Amino acid sequence: MEKFSVTDKTAITRLPKRGAYDKETVYSVLDEALFCTLAFVHEAHPFQIPTGFVRMNNKLYIHGSVGSFYMRELRDKKLPVCISASLMDGLVLARSAFHHSVNYRSVVLFSEPKLVTEEKELYDALEAFTEKICPGRWADVRKPSTNEWKETMVLSFEINEASAKIRTGPPKDDAQDYDMNVWAGVVPLKIERKPAEHDPDLKNGVSLPPYLL
Amino acid sequence: MEKFSVTDKTAITRLPKRGAYDKETVYSVLDEALFCTLAFVHEAHPFQIPTGFVRMNNKLYIHGSVGSFYMRELRDKKLPVCISASLMDGLVLARSAFHHSVNYRSVVLFSEPKLVTEEKELYDALEAFTEKICPGRWADVRKPSTNEWKETMVLSFEINEASAKIRTGPPKDDAQDYDMNVWAGVVPLKIERKPAEHDPDLKNGVSLPPYLL
Repeated sequence: MEKFSVTDKTAITRLPKRGAYDKETVYSVLDEALFCTLAFVHEAHPFQIPTGFVRMNNKLYIHGSVGSFYMRELRDKKLPVCISASLMDGLVLARSAFHHSVNYRSVVLFSEPKLVTEEKELYDALEAFTEKICPGRWADVRKPSTNEWKETMVLSFEINEASAKIRTGPPKDDAQDYDMNVWAGVVPLKIERKPAEHDPDLKNGVSLPPYLL
Repeated sequence: MEKFSVTDKTAITRLPKRGAYDKETVYSVLDEALFCTLAFVHEAHPFQIPTGFVRMNNKLYIHGSVGSFYMRELRDKKLPVCISASLMDGLVLARSAFHHSVNYRSVVLFSEPKLVTEEKELYDALEAFTEKICPGRWADVRKPSTNEWKETMVLSFEINEASAKIRTGPPKDDAQDYDMNVWAGVVPLKIERKPAEHDPDLKNGVSLPPYLL
């Protein structure tokens, strides 16, 4: 199992048994999460941006407008970033208020931005963005025009340092509390995709594609 | 409608029509989000922590162990923070790859930590944490003991500067693309609470409380 090196920045010091450093775990969280938050420092102050992203190999990609202030800052100054993505899997209801918790899977990673200029990498990333939110979609849609390409900036982040933190399972109460007449357990959470809603301006006769049924 | 002042840090410069600065909108996103990410600067590097939180009045609260490195850093150095919370409401599938998007509601705010020492505020915050994830729960469970209180650090963050960014509605394609034979619309996303799972060590005879049915 290939692992990320544990560094000062990524070592899980609080509840270390929840930490994981293997690439498989880190990648699986990144691949399931629909957005990440990207933090950087600007004039000594912390900033963060929630944004869509995709992982390919050991890189994470974000895209934005070439006119976006923060995309330009990241590109021009190669600002160090901290990126995180989290999945909430359940509410953990213990017998004591103190031991209430959530089941979650989160990743925190450190990197710096690199402008993607190589055409194949750029194309693959744009395809991956679309396929991540809706597998099967790319083949269906109009591909980016030359102008659209020029308006889009894609930045890559090599995953240099990363760790995952995961909690699973039932609540853990103090031994003497297990005898209380209080229900305890987990309420699982799941992001559901609801039935697709047609664009009001959908062309007559166009029906839902098989990958959305 | 009461609004947060727009500052250099919170002004939405990219797609400004998606921006909102009224407290009602900002609060509603914070109250629905199950976790936030808290970013701070440590030795000139950006860091962030995903964490549970709750809002009361114009303050946001987080809690953690008194042994937690980052809680102590925040408390002792009163580090400026940037906090964000996001809700993903739908996948926006356009006719062109370029116009694919997501419907979302996000908040980004700036503040600095303050240790909560006043007993009533502390108690109210702990109650609010529990009630946020499961309304009705607080009345049922064992309240924190003196030792548990001593192990818990609660930090408050006055919401000084905040903005929301929101996208809703169907895709917006280029005029000439509306005639394409490509389905377009929105796939709504919703975080569902699934049927509660009993703790394997649940005491015999204890059944699910009404607020979980």
